[in-house]
Amino acid sequence: MDIFEAIKKRRSIRKYKDREVEEEKILKILESARLAPSAKNLQEWRFIVVRDKEKRKKLSEAARNQKFVEEAPVVIACCAQNNEYRLTCGQLSYPIDVAIAIEHMVLTAVEEGLGTCWIGAFYEDKVKEILNIPEEIKVVELLTLGYPDEEPSFRDRLSLEDIVKWESWGG
Amino acid sequence: MDIFEAIKKRRSIRKYKDREVEEEKILKILESARLAPSAKNLQEWRFIVVRDKEKRKKLSEAARNQKFVEEAPVVIACCAQNNEYRLTCGQLSYPIDVAIAIEHMVLTAVEEGLGTCWIGAFYEDKVKEILNIPEEIKVVELLTLGYPDEEPSFRDRLSLEDIVKWESWGG
Repeated sequence: MDIFEAIKKRRSIRKYKDREVEEEKILKILESARLAPSAKNLQEWRFIVVRDKEKRKKLSEAARNQKFVEEAPVVIACCAQNNEYRLTCGQLSYPIDVAIAIEHMVLTAVEEGLGTCWIGAFYEDKVKEILNIPEEIKVVELLTLGYPDEEPSFRDRLSLEDIVKWESWGG
Repeated sequence: MDIFEAIKKRRSIRKYKDREVEEEKILKILESARLAPSAKNLQEWRFIVVRDKEKRKKLSEAARNQKFVEEAPVVIACCAQNNEYRLTCGQLSYPIDVAIAIEHMVLTAVEEGLGTCWIGAFYEDKVKEILNIPEEIKVVELLTLGYPDEEPSFRDRLSLEDIVKWESWGG
């Protein structure tokens, strides 16, 4: 599937089939994250792949009771090590770098016929406790993964005119 | 080009051909950013497309004299509006959302035979001055865009074993 196609096809999937995801596909998706670019090649990303039902249930509770987190056959806790480096522009590098790696997984999942959903609505301390994550590690996002059991319509977007400026912000 | 292919092919390009990028390609690349997912569909991203040679020269100076910023035929200043929203997990949403949109552009560029480079090494206040960007807007990254005039080798990556854990961080 071509990239632009996958970008158009991607949806946030919150309903999954009761079907396991093949290990081979999970590994390919993780590999796509591994190859992501990062500031100074820091590769801050660390991923915990959770398939255990009991753990997914607990994660779902930590994610403000979003039931689909339990129902998805795979939940990936997307974490960051070395999370203090700041770019010259002032931004922390790790949220950006982890986000790039996650979106690689999201798009590769589309290509593999799978669905995902980015989840930022979770209590970090609870997730850390459930997955035994050391204090110095940040949990940036959870990502659900599985075979989609819904075809949500595309959410409205701002127009290109709204988000693009030419040569300068204004004036 | 399939997604996994593009992810493997992507490089940070710091040498560009002296060749303009077709407007149609620039618009397709921006469109791929427009379609990105974001927290609560906030779409914080705003893009300033800079082709003017004099402005690119100034941006290159603001980017710690990285000469290729001037040489790239297009520089996109990737900004964020509504930059105060925090996810439940504690992360600011805008660096993550803008990063997703940028990586859509990066991968779409690969498909279009173009090269890009993420740049975080710039002085934000200087870039704001050059592009007349209001104070409340964040400049998250610069992105160069053009036809590659180099084929850099792939930088080393940690192994999957280094970055992936199963079921829990440890223990």
